[in-house]
Amino acid sequence: MALISPISSPNGKTFNQKLFSRIRVAIESDVPHIYKLMQQLFVYHNITHLLKSNESSIASGIFNPKFPNLSPVTTLLIEVSAIPFQSCLNDKTSSKEVDLSMPLIDEESEQFRVVKYDQHDVFIAGYVMFYPCFSSFFENPVFHMENFFIRECYRRKGFGKWLFSTMASEAARMGFSSIDWYASDWNESGLDFYKHMGATISDDFRVLSLDGKALEAFEDDSN
Amino acid sequence: MALISPISSPNGKTFNQKLFSRIRVAIESDVPHIYKLMQQLFVYHNITHLLKSNESSIASGIFNPKFPNLSPVTTLLIEVSAIPFQSCLNDKTSSKEVDLSMPLIDEESEQFRVVKYDQHDVFIAGYVMFYPCFSSFFENPVFHMENFFIRECYRRKGFGKWLFSTMASEAARMGFSSIDWYASDWNESGLDFYKHMGATISDDFRVLSLDGKALEAFEDDSN
Repeated sequence: MALISPISSPNGKTFNQKLFSRIRVAIESDVPHIYKLMQQLFVYHNITHLLKSNESSIASGIFNPKFPNLSPVTTLLIEVSAIPFQSCLNDKTSSKEVDLSMPLIDEESEQFRVVKYDQHDVFIAGYVMFYPCFSSFFENPVFHMENFFIRECYRRKGFGKWLFSTMASEAARMGFSSIDWYASDWNESGLDFYKHMGATISDDFRVLSLDGKALEAFEDDSN
Repeated sequence: MALISPISSPNGKTFNQKLFSRIRVAIESDVPHIYKLMQQLFVYHNITHLLKSNESSIASGIFNPKFPNLSPVTTLLIEVSAIPFQSCLNDKTSSKEVDLSMPLIDEESEQFRVVKYDQHDVFIAGYVMFYPCFSSFFENPVFHMENFFIRECYRRKGFGKWLFSTMASEAARMGFSSIDWYASDWNESGLDFYKHMGATISDDFRVLSLDGKALEAFEDDSN
């Protein structure tokens, strides 16, 4: 339910009129936020029973791999604030401002507050996570998009398109041949979004996996 | 059509009674055979229009990546011979012999002859290709199985199970959490095989991709 012109909300941060935002590369201190976003992503897809990672494994998986030589994982975050960003953490940033037709309330703002900024409130609105990999289909390697998620209150503001485009632009400029990913069949708005971005949806590929006890059964396999 | 007790075939190699085989890790000189197997794999799946790699790009993708830091790709080959293997190329080998209830003719044997053995005829019967990668689903990384193929004349001999098990055993022993891959929806015998291996087939994930001109369109994207 949209409220008319609230100044603030006891349940979180309220943005009036304008939302300033930027995209930056995640660093290790962002992992607690990334894992919360990941949990929301799995809830959204109704696949929480498949989430067997944890905050620590995500941290080591992205920033300190226990397994050598894995393709590096890149996570791009969207940060939002009520006032313009003064500085950039690094060169891989871009910024954008969004005019709000009505106030936007982020009821979970405290969970997604970026703690390193003490001058003004900055919150994480969404993320995309991807890594480069070999492909037998193409001449050059491809990106595999592992996660893509915009928090509910920040949807329909163009953030998804901006974040996806930033990743796709990086892939195209670096000479990668494709981006591939999975999406849920029932997620019509998601599939429509991806089609609008130019994606091809395979008609007949199924996704298979072997894990848990079924994989462990091969540990002592004598072939 | 099976022939009764042929001694040899003008169109290729004939195996009588026994087939000796082993699995070994592919090396760079195997690339021409790997690419021929890959072409047959794409023909089998009726997706030759999606094959945009070439022998040279496969060679550099697996053995001399132009893009730094990509997860290393492992290719395991099944070699077959009419007489036992005397020596092993490296430690990552295992061998097996198959009793033939009727002679086996490999009509394409010359295309798949392994040239480095001058003492006796050795041919490539199939391959599996996989690489390790990060996963948001699991505590540890996973294997992505990129290709899996047994040549037509060598099917129903247990080679597929043996090759798949060798990869799965490696994943389990190294502490990887899962193996994931795609398969064609219409490929009932393939899906049955994977189910028999313990695989889970996702009901609702679709495979999406962004490539070609649709990806190139993002190259000059100003976000």
